[in-house]
Amino acid sequence: MATPTQMTLDDLFIDTLKDIYYAEKQIVKALPKMAKTAHDPNLKAGFEKHVSETQGHIDRLEQVFEIIGQPARGKTCDAILGILEEGKSIIEDYKGTVSLDAGLIAAGQAVEHYEMARYGTLRTWAMQLGYADAAKLLETTLLEERATDQALTKLAEVGGDNAKAA
Amino acid sequence: MATPTQMTLDDLFIDTLKDIYYAEKQIVKALPKMAKTAHDPNLKAGFEKHVSETQGHIDRLEQVFEIIGQPARGKTCDAILGILEEGKSIIEDYKGTVSLDAGLIAAGQAVEHYEMARYGTLRTWAMQLGYADAAKLLETTLLEERATDQALTKLAEVGGDNAKAA
Repeated sequence: MATPTQMTLDDLFIDTLKDIYYAEKQIVKALPKMAKTAHDPNLKAGFEKHVSETQGHIDRLEQVFEIIGQPARGKTCDAILGILEEGKSIIEDYKGTVSLDAGLIAAGQAVEHYEMARYGTLRTWAMQLGYADAAKLLETTLLEERATDQALTKLAEVGGDNAKAA
Repeated sequence: MATPTQMTLDDLFIDTLKDIYYAEKQIVKALPKMAKTAHDPNLKAGFEKHVSETQGHIDRLEQVFEIIGQPARGKTCDAILGILEEGKSIIEDYKGTVSLDAGLIAAGQAVEHYEMARYGTLRTWAMQLGYADAAKLLETTLLEERATDQALTKLAEVGGDNAKAA
């Protein structure tokens, strides 16, 4: 690692890759619990689908590490730990209520937004650093996270009617 | 507060309002430090502008609390604490380097995305709960957070050229 004043965009890129790599590994562990807890079959299926997508994101990150010649390693990401902690509190506080699904969707969207921020940043930096292939991989994941977020928004909008009907 | 099995979307709405109210108060304290540390005058100005916008977001949240007849109170938000902690680490690790601004932009975008997730959720719930005026206030803030995120994306794209030129 470079000394502080020599730290470059390359170092920042690697640090942030490690951050999201750690985050994805936490997310892939949290999602099955969210799927299991959800009431709405569509939400359940959405979380289950996202488990395998997240595994794909981890694979892509490992490809990016390989492209830049670095070992695939995670680095504790306080942000995702905080976001997932809030999700856990919602499960505890709203389990057995008609609003649990709404809370799970909100928790899921906080996760997706964190990832969208990180993948957007990483893709821009990959392009600036001349890692075109890495940029493509990061862009592919970014689009999947965005699609998941949009699917959750749709479920949130339908969810209100279900809650009213319940 | 309702007993667990009686918790409704109203409770979830109030809990999440408290979460983002706490988050905004943390953000308004963190932004001046980010502005002070930034090298690029445009980034510095962007963070400074967002300080007063964030004060406006806090005011709007207080109006929402008033609309729903609840006292304006915060509730510890682990997510924003984690996100801001990562921002602090970047400042520590990259201070005095050409990449500091890139790191600050990334930190800012993680904050904006968290807020976009929360305000999107809150706006949808406000509509479902029949709080049309609250929904409008939350939507106004959501659009400002999105605009800030887009402005940071533009600075990130320009930033790469500056870093190369440095």
